[in-house]
Amino acid sequence: MALGEEWFTEPCEQHGSAFSLKAKKKLHEEQTAYQKIEIFETTQYGNLMTIDGFVMLTDRDNFLYHEMMSHPALYTHPAPNNVLVIGGGDCGTLKEVLKHPEVKLAQQVEIDERVTRLSEIYFPSLCESNNDPRAELHFVDGIKWVKDAAAGHYDVIIVDSTDPIGPAEGLFNEAFYRECHRALGEQGILVQQSESPLYHIKLIHAMREAMQRAGFAQTLTLDFPQPVYPSGWWSATMAGKSGTLTGFRENDAAQKPFATRYYSSARHKASTVEIPLLAEEQD
Amino acid sequence: MALGEEWFTEPCEQHGSAFSLKAKKKLHEEQTAYQKIEIFETTQYGNLMTIDGFVMLTDRDNFLYHEMMSHPALYTHPAPNNVLVIGGGDCGTLKEVLKHPEVKLAQQVEIDERVTRLSEIYFPSLCESNNDPRAELHFVDGIKWVKDAAAGHYDVIIVDSTDPIGPAEGLFNEAFYRECHRALGEQGILVQQSESPLYHIKLIHAMREAMQRAGFAQTLTLDFPQPVYPSGWWSATMAGKSGTLTGFRENDAAQKPFATRYYSSARHKASTVEIPLLAEEQD
Repeated sequence: MALGEEWFTEPCEQHGSAFSLKAKKKLHEEQTAYQKIEIFETTQYGNLMTIDGFVMLTDRDNFLYHEMMSHPALYTHPAPNNVLVIGGGDCGTLKEVLKHPEVKLAQQVEIDERVTRLSEIYFPSLCESNNDPRAELHFVDGIKWVKDAAAGHYDVIIVDSTDPIGPAEGLFNEAFYRECHRALGEQGILVQQSESPLYHIKLIHAMREAMQRAGFAQTLTLDFPQPVYPSGWWSATMAGKSGTLTGFRENDAAQKPFATRYYSSARHKASTVEIPLLAEEQD
Repeated sequence: MALGEEWFTEPCEQHGSAFSLKAKKKLHEEQTAYQKIEIFETTQYGNLMTIDGFVMLTDRDNFLYHEMMSHPALYTHPAPNNVLVIGGGDCGTLKEVLKHPEVKLAQQVEIDERVTRLSEIYFPSLCESNNDPRAELHFVDGIKWVKDAAAGHYDVIIVDSTDPIGPAEGLFNEAFYRECHRALGEQGILVQQSESPLYHIKLIHAMREAMQRAGFAQTLTLDFPQPVYPSGWWSATMAGKSGTLTGFRENDAAQKPFATRYYSSARHKASTVEIPLLAEEQD
């Protein structure tokens, strides 16, 4: 059956699948200096933000992505005091990062200020920690920001970007990873969203190899459900400077001083053993 | 954007989402005594079977469901010799069950023989163990089969059914669970597909409560990605007669004599701690 025109559909032509959400109305549409942002009110997923026609997030299921982009990396680092989020303009990752009492400074560097300004309006719950005194919001190029950072300054760098096409392309290569490696402390951890384990195994392998060529000692890919992204199954890849990724602060994670809906110490521990699928070579 | 008519779409109106697969052609369409079965050749997901318009399985991603419906339950039981699969006409669960050397008899009881006959043609890899001397295929009513079974006969009963509407409705209630409880041995385990953790928390709770009222000592819900089912995130709920669900044969699972693509001993262990979301009350 064909869906009516009230549905927003994102086809993934390369993999012959599509995901749709039923919209009540379009709340906003804007061409920024970088991309086209649209906001919809859906019938069951709360608000939806798309960029250039690709789903970025919804109220209903963003907790999965934001929890898994932040907590595993922060509980893997022994003392995550200084955290940098590249991209992440919806502020959902920043909010999760700030839940960690060890964090003294959390900087978010998003190239497109409009993503954040629209999130403040349409996703206010994600932005509720933006006034935390430990938070800094910068609207500049993340690649340049990392290049300009002092060596060894950060404990964790989270690359919360769009897909490796368009403005985010420069965030998925060895040169950028090399700058991240330099900007991280000795036990530093880089974590980046790494697409679908079902669709993008080749990309995941390429990312991991580039991270290792850039000097990282170890990489680890965690997978998690993410209903609104292609295939409904997503991943984040961590890269560690000193190879500590399979151990983490398990006791701290088990006694975390905040609630989560998906992340748990047990789930984190399981993620330190990758699914067999990731060892397969695929196109 | 609207998709062209070459796409097969399954809307989930209640949750305002839809999933689509691009089809090359329809290979078969048939109204059986129970339901309408259609088989499509897709562009990227291999063959697709739908029943009454709902996606049942595809070549590409059925491994997730079939591995998670079988291996956790079989590695939780100390000696799974006699296994019953209710439904499961595509034979994918049966194939996974037969990988366990402990299994001496695996009976599949599917009400609609046409599901299996079409799977033999269009999903031959799932049916490749059907001639295993330990396998028995019966095409009768699963509810009656369990009612007629000798008390304590089975070690594991796997309810691999369609959604709790139509022919499968009678597989989701206390009366059926009571018969399963009776047909299982002292350490027996029942496992049933239990829909989406994002969409069907209320159903999951109702199932678990009905299982407990039927006499099961403990229940445990495992979640896993399943791209082609609504929300892309699915679950299986185990019910144990003697409360052994959080322990399992971890060493055997770690040294399993067969390959998997998703299941692992580590992933299994993590599943014994449920995700926080499942404790939430939702409509």
